[in-house]
Amino acid sequence: MLTNKDLEFMQIALKEAKSAAKIGEIPVGAVIVKNNKIISKAFNKRETKKNALAHAEILAINKACKKLKSWRLLGCTIYITLEPCIMCAGAILNSKIERIIYGALSEKKSVFSSLKFLNKDLIPNNLEIIPNVYEKECKFLIQKFFKSLR
Amino acid sequence: MLTNKDLEFMQIALKEAKSAAKIGEIPVGAVIVKNNKIISKAFNKRETKKNALAHAEILAINKACKKLKSWRLLGCTIYITLEPCIMCAGAILNSKIERIIYGALSEKKSVFSSLKFLNKDLIPNNLEIIPNVYEKECKFLIQKFFKSLR
Repeated sequence: MLTNKDLEFMQIALKEAKSAAKIGEIPVGAVIVKNNKIISKAFNKRETKKNALAHAEILAINKACKKLKSWRLLGCTIYITLEPCIMCAGAILNSKIERIIYGALSEKKSVFSSLKFLNKDLIPNNLEIIPNVYEKECKFLIQKFFKSLR
Repeated sequence: MLTNKDLEFMQIALKEAKSAAKIGEIPVGAVIVKNNKIISKAFNKRETKKNALAHAEILAINKACKKLKSWRLLGCTIYITLEPCIMCAGAILNSKIERIIYGALSEKKSVFSSLKFLNKDLIPNNLEIIPNVYEKECKFLIQKFFKSLR
């Protein structure tokens, strides 16, 4: 179930995504929240960090584990402007994050859109997944970014 | 195609895995090689680092990107003692590693065993995947580790 608070946090994820675009990175932002408090936020820095791991979600999970001093991010929600890739979806599963709220659908098939129905046993029952939140805004950011590159 | 060199590098991955067991971590090791030279090696440190991302493969990819100053690990082979989880499989795909050689099969379904035939479009054609190398040794390490915990 989506709340007004969820929409607020998604707007913060959108701000993160805009920060990525400003430095020439594909605009994806992520925010991790526990008990209505922001634990971490990050934006995609793959080119800046020259690192295949530096997606917004991975950077946010890394900070969150450090902050909570645990590899288990129990009770946490992650807000992402774009549907996670396989790596990030796997990282979210590994970290035991309990809610995933995301904006635009990925053009590549992600674990959530493909595995969700193909391999139900990979997705825990208690994981809540809410797609398409601020979908248009998230998608517009990415389209604008790629248009500006041409 | 598996070479003698591949077997040597897999033995180094096994050594890494043993280092993990020594500090109470599930024994998984990873080595990344380019042009027959080791670029990085690492072992699982999830408990030590209290971080959901700290699998052997992620730590090795992180080091390799830093070393090669690129998010693209072109021409690289990764040797892993255990079939990668979803997160690590996704990270390997994202980093453009070209060969994956691994030992024991994971009991959880991984991206490679499940997606390989379900979603062929997720696995690039030029990716070479060789499973079951030193499978017994890799599996034995993990079984011994879990027995010692009981």
